[in-house]
Amino acid sequence: MSESIRNLLEQVKNGQVSVDTALLKLKTKPIDDLGYAQVDLHRVVRQGVPEVIYGAGKTGEQIVGIISSMKANGQCQILITRLSPDIAVYIQKKYEMTFVESAHIGYIGDIPIQKTKSSIAIITGGTSDYKVAEECAVTAEFYGNKVERVYDVGVAGIHRLLQNLERIMSAKVIVVIAGMEGALASVVGGLVDVPVIAVPTSVGYGTSFGGVAALLSMLNSCASGVTVVNIDNGFGAAYMANMINHIGESK
Amino acid sequence: MSESIRNLLEQVKNGQVSVDTALLKLKTKPIDDLGYAQVDLHRVVRQGVPEVIYGAGKTGEQIVGIISSMKANGQCQILITRLSPDIAVYIQKKYEMTFVESAHIGYIGDIPIQKTKSSIAIITGGTSDYKVAEECAVTAEFYGNKVERVYDVGVAGIHRLLQNLERIMSAKVIVVIAGMEGALASVVGGLVDVPVIAVPTSVGYGTSFGGVAALLSMLNSCASGVTVVNIDNGFGAAYMANMINHIGESK
Amino acid sequence: MSESIRNLLEQVKNGQVSVDTALLKLKTKPIDDLGYAQVDLHRVVRQGVPEVIYGAGKTGEQIVGIISSMKANGQCQILITRLSPDIAVYIQKKYEMTFVESAHIGYIGDIPIQKTKSSIAIITGGTSDYKVAEECAVTAEFYGNKVERVYDVGVAGIHRLLQNLERIMSAKVIVVIAGMEGALASVVGGLVDVPVIAVPTSVGYGTSFGGVAALLSMLNSCASGVTVVNIDNGFGAAYMANMINHIGESK
Amino acid sequence: MSESIRNLLEQVKNGQVSVDTALLKLKTKPIDDLGYAQVDLHRVVRQGVPEVIYGAGKTGEQIVGIISSMKANGQCQILITRLSPDIAVYIQKKYEMTFVESAHIGYIGDIPIQKTKSSIAIITGGTSDYKVAEECAVTAEFYGNKVERVYDVGVAGIHRLLQNLERIMSAKVIVVIAGMEGALASVVGGLVDVPVIAVPTSVGYGTSFGGVAALLSMLNSCASGVTVVNIDNGFGAAYMANMINHIGESK
Amino acid sequence: MSESIRNLLEQVKNGQVSVDTALLKLKTKPIDDLGYAQVDLHRVVRQGVPEVIYGAGKTGEQIVGIISSMKANGQCQILITRLSPDIAVYIQKKYEMTFVESAHIGYIGDIPIQKTKSSIAIITGGTSDYKVAEECAVTAEFYGNKVERVYDVGVAGIHRLLQNLERIMSAKVIVVIAGMEGALASVVGGLVDVPVIAVPTSVGYGTSFGGVAALLSMLNSCASGVTVVNIDNGFGAAYMANMINHIGESK
Amino acid sequence: MSESIRNLLEQVKNGQVSVDTALLKLKTKPIDDLGYAQVDLHRVVRQGVPEVIYGAGKTGEQIVGIISSMKANGQCQILITRLSPDIAVYIQKKYEMTFVESAHIGYIGDIPIQKTKSSIAIITGGTSDYKVAEECAVTAEFYGNKVERVYDVGVAGIHRLLQNLERIMSAKVIVVIAGMEGALASVVGGLVDVPVIAVPTSVGYGTSFGGVAALLSMLNSCASGVTVVNIDNGFGAAYMANMINHIGESK
Amino acid sequence: MSESIRNLLEQVKNGQVSVDTALLKLKTKPIDDLGYAQVDLHRVVRQGVPEVIYGAGKTGEQIVGIISSMKANGQCQILITRLSPDIAVYIQKKYEMTFVESAHIGYIGDIPIQKTKSSIAIITGGTSDYKVAEECAVTAEFYGNKVERVYDVGVAGIHRLLQNLERIMSAKVIVVIAGMEGALASVVGGLVDVPVIAVPTSVGYGTSFGGVAALLSMLNSCASGVTVVNIDNGFGAAYMANMINHIGESK
Amino acid sequence: MSESIRNLLEQVKNGQVSVDTALLKLKTKPIDDLGYAQVDLHRVVRQGVPEVIYGAGKTGEQIVGIISSMKANGQCQILITRLSPDIAVYIQKKYEMTFVESAHIGYIGDIPIQKTKSSIAIITGGTSDYKVAEECAVTAEFYGNKVERVYDVGVAGIHRLLQNLERIMSAKVIVVIAGMEGALASVVGGLVDVPVIAVPTSVGYGTSFGGVAALLSMLNSCASGVTVVNIDNGFGAAYMANMINHIGESK
Repeated sequence: MSESIRNLLEQVKNGQVSVDTALLKLKTKPIDDLGYAQVDLHRVVRQGVPEVIYGAGKTGEQIVGIISSMKANGQCQILITRLSPDIAVYIQKKYEMTFVESAHIGYIGDIPIQKTKSSIAIITGGTSDYKVAEECAVTAEFYGNKVERVYDVGVAGIHRLLQNLERIMSAKVIVVIAGMEGALASVVGGLVDVPVIAVPTSVGYGTSFGGVAALLSMLNSCASGVTVVNIDNGFGAAYMANMINHIGESK
Repeated sequence: MSESIRNLLEQVKNGQVSVDTALLKLKTKPIDDLGYAQVDLHRVVRQGVPEVIYGAGKTGEQIVGIISSMKANGQCQILITRLSPDIAVYIQKKYEMTFVESAHIGYIGDIPIQKTKSSIAIITGGTSDYKVAEECAVTAEFYGNKVERVYDVGVAGIHRLLQNLERIMSAKVIVVIAGMEGALASVVGGLVDVPVIAVPTSVGYGTSFGGVAALLSMLNSCASGVTVVNIDNGFGAAYMANMINHIGESK
Repeated sequence: MSESIRNLLEQVKNGQVSVDTALLKLKTKPIDDLGYAQVDLHRVVRQGVPEVIYGAGKTGEQIVGIISSMKANGQCQILITRLSPDIAVYIQKKYEMTFVESAHIGYIGDIPIQKTKSSIAIITGGTSDYKVAEECAVTAEFYGNKVERVYDVGVAGIHRLLQNLERIMSAKVIVVIAGMEGALASVVGGLVDVPVIAVPTSVGYGTSFGGVAALLSMLNSCASGVTVVNIDNGFGAAYMANMINHIGESK
Repeated sequence: MSESIRNLLEQVKNGQVSVDTALLKLKTKPIDDLGYAQVDLHRVVRQGVPEVIYGAGKTGEQIVGIISSMKANGQCQILITRLSPDIAVYIQKKYEMTFVESAHIGYIGDIPIQKTKSSIAIITGGTSDYKVAEECAVTAEFYGNKVERVYDVGVAGIHRLLQNLERIMSAKVIVVIAGMEGALASVVGGLVDVPVIAVPTSVGYGTSFGGVAALLSMLNSCASGVTVVNIDNGFGAAYMANMINHIGESK
Repeated sequence: MSESIRNLLEQVKNGQVSVDTALLKLKTKPIDDLGYAQVDLHRVVRQGVPEVIYGAGKTGEQIVGIISSMKANGQCQILITRLSPDIAVYIQKKYEMTFVESAHIGYIGDIPIQKTKSSIAIITGGTSDYKVAEECAVTAEFYGNKVERVYDVGVAGIHRLLQNLERIMSAKVIVVIAGMEGALASVVGGLVDVPVIAVPTSVGYGTSFGGVAALLSMLNSCASGVTVVNIDNGFGAAYMANMINHIGESK
Repeated sequence: MSESIRNLLEQVKNGQVSVDTALLKLKTKPIDDLGYAQVDLHRVVRQGVPEVIYGAGKTGEQIVGIISSMKANGQCQILITRLSPDIAVYIQKKYEMTFVESAHIGYIGDIPIQKTKSSIAIITGGTSDYKVAEECAVTAEFYGNKVERVYDVGVAGIHRLLQNLERIMSAKVIVVIAGMEGALASVVGGLVDVPVIAVPTSVGYGTSFGGVAALLSMLNSCASGVTVVNIDNGFGAAYMANMINHIGESK
Repeated sequence: MSESIRNLLEQVKNGQVSVDTALLKLKTKPIDDLGYAQVDLHRVVRQGVPEVIYGAGKTGEQIVGIISSMKANGQCQILITRLSPDIAVYIQKKYEMTFVESAHIGYIGDIPIQKTKSSIAIITGGTSDYKVAEECAVTAEFYGNKVERVYDVGVAGIHRLLQNLERIMSAKVIVVIAGMEGALASVVGGLVDVPVIAVPTSVGYGTSFGGVAALLSMLNSCASGVTVVNIDNGFGAAYMANMINHIGESK
Repeated sequence: MSESIRNLLEQVKNGQVSVDTALLKLKTKPIDDLGYAQVDLHRVVRQGVPEVIYGAGKTGEQIVGIISSMKANGQCQILITRLSPDIAVYIQKKYEMTFVESAHIGYIGDIPIQKTKSSIAIITGGTSDYKVAEECAVTAEFYGNKVERVYDVGVAGIHRLLQNLERIMSAKVIVVIAGMEGALASVVGGLVDVPVIAVPTSVGYGTSFGGVAALLSMLNSCASGVTVVNIDNGFGAAYMANMINHIGESK
């Protein structure tokens, strides 16, 4: 994120510059209207991270068009989520893009070498939660976070969780990813003293109702300090965890 | 339960007597038709425990009528569930009945002094699950079981559960009673090697949906060996636990 | 299950050895961390049966890896549920595995020749419940139980049920499997005096809602002694029935 | 119903008179507009039974107004359903009305002495279904039907049902009223060869969801010949049963 | 249906023969146990129509086996519903069977030439309800009923319904089949004085929820005399309509 | 609404004045911050009608405070919806307010004498929909509309609707208010050529689910030109109808 | 629409001609019964726009048949919605039809050159709502409306919306199309003073439940003047918007 | 919180002391078993804040008992949520407790004078969300946070939100509390670059379904960085916000 913009925003926060004045300064082409999409070029200004391309339901042509617009406007780090292998191949013909198939994520630019000092722990209940976990992990790494993966430690064998407690408790923020009954979020939430972001997954059958059972379980957690995102929303959890993990980090 | 009837049924099971012949022998007044109710006097024959009076939605007069019919037909141990204090007082004017208000249960006859050697452990997630737990415990005791109460050991503070593990693991069958996210059933199910009967309770608010969140959690338990009964159905869990706990007990 | 471990656990139950001491003794490699899975090698210690591989959502490579880990750690009897024919073929190239396609189950090692003296009765409402019933039956047999299959005796023709009553009533525990309105569980529950485990199936259309109608029917059974597992969860019912059926069996 | 109107309608059915002509003839004040209600004075013409007053949500004044309009237009037999005791008292000050509190029904005029030769059997699962059953029974009797009440014969004790089979099988149409899991409808539907109208009741708790469990059970009945009405709709079942029971009766 | 059996049943109804005696007489092989199915050979005795084969979820081999059993036991008129074209071809290699693809119905034996004098009207809201309507119509014709088809007369253009009123009002019983909002059932129910059986269909999108919107609409019909069957259950409606339509017909 | 503000807005619409300039001009105290509420004094500018006070969940003190703020800022016509009689009395001690109890509406200022030339027809299915209908009617009248009330013309007696067709068809926009199955919206929608706004009401029982059945029915209407508002939202329907009815009216 | 018919209807509205007389005049072949469909040839008379062919669930043959009937009866402008590419090709062999694949719409005849003076604004939250938006836009254009497309201006970047405010505020009626949380409808509804028709789309995953989240959001909009249509019902929104947009237009 | 315990935990985090050793040190009476509750005296050790007493469903006696236990074990700052006025009075007879009725919160000990430097912004959509907001605000203040209240700025008048942007954007974490359609969470989430915790409230009627509409809206937020807690769970949001707000604060 360009420092000049940050400075401007700092002045807004300090009251040195009014919001209106700042908005004026920022008004040089904040949106690129492609017809099929209005690329939000100022999101990096407003929110500290560039706009992410949600790949689901977009054609390869559309995604390439959005990437072109972003690159033409100086954005070098681009993340595309929910990207199918076919469309990934299409994009790679035009742009140098890394595709992480297990996470359904493509990205342009490099994952930062210098990571945060503090880490995000990503914990899953079972092997089947892998895809959602990797969507979360790769997103967090793309945003410069140190990530601690602790997979397949669901409550059916709670000693697996207890044996990994030290790795988990050293994190600044924890993402718990679980399907079926999603009990892992409550157990972890009861053991740690950092924010827990719970991601219900659609893993399960019958009355799991595509993740609803896990979602309700997490929303009703008897442990405090647990908040929840949409079913299978690994990206959303990573986004929130990234914001928390960067608090207090020297820039 | 009269031994002659038991003998008859044993012969049926052994193939010495056909079901039809047995049914014939049992046909002396199996039902007492009170108009408002058909009292099932042979349930003790068919199912080993006398018919239970479900008190909800019955008037005091109706319950007294049913008790009269049962006593007139030689049944001395009578259990009435979901009994309101008002109606309990009404019944107590006619019959000597013990009323356990915390469990909403009344019973006529004594809780057996001689208990089973093995025990049923009844575990709750929180203090608010007390009523359901007592409905379960009193029913189990009425049927002659040794009961181990382990209350308020929910997963938000899992060390409370772990500190009680020895009491829990010595039971022959376990009833887990929890509201909110109901995660306790999975955690217990993953730790023990005896049948676990899970009772979701309506404790909670918002998306607990009157116990549905806990119910779904329990139905989707990642731990094997967990079966589920209706929300707040402490009686049903006790009934099942009683059957299991009596297996292999000498009579 | 090795007798030494059982002895240790017996001492724990008797209070001769504390839980902590026992856990210490058991700590030789309780988990094998494969990265994609943490194989729980001590489940046989904790729960009396070895960990089962839930095949759904795992690749052939992953399942083979888990089998390798289990075999390397001395586990000879291995059960894989929800296994697709394709992956079964893949596994069979590496290991000698029996595949029961109708039950979507594969197993390594032999089904025990010596069965329990008492039996588990598995009853279905219709022909369409066959797959779930076989998942239940094969699992039960793999765990050494005598199984009595009574299929297609739904309440639309209740004489079919009544004609099989003697076979049903000789069981120590009964599994009732039914889709559509699931009424069979209540009718059976009202006739017998042993535990009934009800399995709703996704058989039906329209308002069966993929098994929800049968599930609700079973949870609200007016007969006592009926507990319920997740929709189509034949394995779970077998697991519970196996625990009950083994009570009082000489080892 | 006046014979002249019936003749007219017969002619319409036979094609002797066109619908338009007939409608013209019937147009003398078919509706009485009271402002708060449009009293349908021709329903007896169209549907063979006079309009019924649905008492719920109407004030005493409104119901008295509607009765006045009906009486002024020559209607002598008037049925009011879902009537509260308070409003019943209010009405009885103005009109001679019989109030059947257990059925929440009031009626003006007499229940016909001469009944149909064939009967409607009304069967309930339990004592708690009594109110809905009486709403059904009184309505059916008000419309001149012979009614056979068979209460409290739910499937938890199926011999209670079997012992009443002869009474049930002699009916021309059967109404089955049950809450909880509503299995009675399927069992009866599988035993008889006459139309079965199923009424789910809101009796139950937890996952009975106010009658939804019984409703789904009845809609998914594996027995053919079962149709369903709204939860607790005893009146609707009686209305349908009355139409069927009158087929073939000499007038 | 053989007259001797009918006579026997008539005697049961008249009280000349007890149910037990009659059952005894009927006990020659009431069920043929094929392993995968228990063919109910006495359903014609109990319910006046032979057992129907529900084709969904059965293999061609299984259906052929059931047909063989039925034919071997003297049943000549056989109906198979929910039959896929592939399996129909398979069956036709073994037996002479008429396959009505639009209705997903196959039948062996002839549709009776002599029909009932009274008719069943089958009314649909739109063209898309055709398949369900034909399942209903063919079933009704197979059972010997005169059928009046009145298709595509939904309430969006109510004059289409009104123009067909005479055809509709001449029926003894009416089946209303509609998806989307299912309003047609209420409108017809308010116009006629014969029983109306409503069939919600899964036609629609979005909040039609696969027929639930139409189902709820029909269950809450403000018109009396409307009962409901499961979504898309054209067969069930025909079965009920057939029973009603045959009342009072000379045999 | 002050003409100067309207002129300003007209200039904005014509492009003579930019939105920014206009907003600047309007910035004199657009909000009055009462602590418990931020009174939106410019809504009349933005939306043509003054802010409405939603009375539910507000104390008498709060409502009086908001009224004071509005009056102090020159707003003379004030509407308060969902107002309980108790709080109405409280307010009337401070301000001259008309309270229409049947509609749960209070208003300050007069209902305009001069009405629109075109009218809004408000149609209900039954008498029980009265309160919602009056909330709609009084709101519409308060906004200066001519209102045509056509109550209790539900589809169970469709001739009641047909007899009022001329009154209905003369309206410029129609509000259809119905509970139970809500079929009236579709029938009206199929007969007229003006916008129909459908209001589901919570009238009904059982599967009406507090208005959900009617809501789904209306959302799935097979008639085009029907849009829907929240259950019981008479105010919202009036608000929309008012906007449509004023199009083309000379000011 | 032929002027003579309009005149007739005007006379009906003015009371110069009664509804009955008018209906008589219009009775020359109002319906063409094709067996599989009853083509409503008078809908243009009743509702101002010709009947639209809902393509989903109809065969190519059926659609061609309906088109033939419409053309034979003088209808030149024909719209077919939810049309698949395959069937479109089939129809184009018989008739000159324009197919707009992105909107799944086919039409015969030309989109009117002369548009309304006022416009309909169609606003979407994201790129994925494109199909529903185009169904809406093409329908509106086919009915002669000027359409303003404002796509991809969801609330995640609200400045995109604010920058398009002038285009939006110049419309006479606005259609807001959004999936996910559907918040755009409330934000737009709070900013404008014209009718807003909200279309929830099935865009989203997990708890979007195929559009239900957006639907509920829109039904509960805290902004007044928002009405809602079925999920993905772009056509229905266009139909309503067309009616509103034509009010006050000179013909 | 005692510094020695903190030091111990720091050593655990740094790996200087193992978890096991630390747990050993902490084992002096971690739980006080009151029979009806197991007071968790070490939660301050595990989670940095003392155990909170959830008042709902507990008697005054029970709460007083728990307070006594906590005070006897040296805990001076005690928070009781969901406390009814009656029970508050009861407690105040025994202990000096501040009761904030609007927040249904009681607390013993003082709200810290020294607050965090950074603040938590608490934003509500409307006046009716006040109680939930105050539960959140008082909890946050009790934990030592600076709180910025921004109430009644819902999206129906988005300028109210925009005018408060500077106050909102200066916070380190934001809690958005809204009922009805809950759109405020998405709009705020799209404007800021700090974590947003969304609290759906049960404010609304009809299809708000007691907060479900707002919950779904928030879970499906198109803005990133929004996580969600249970309906009306102001405490839970404050708990999470407190953890985030304290990151990087010097102690």
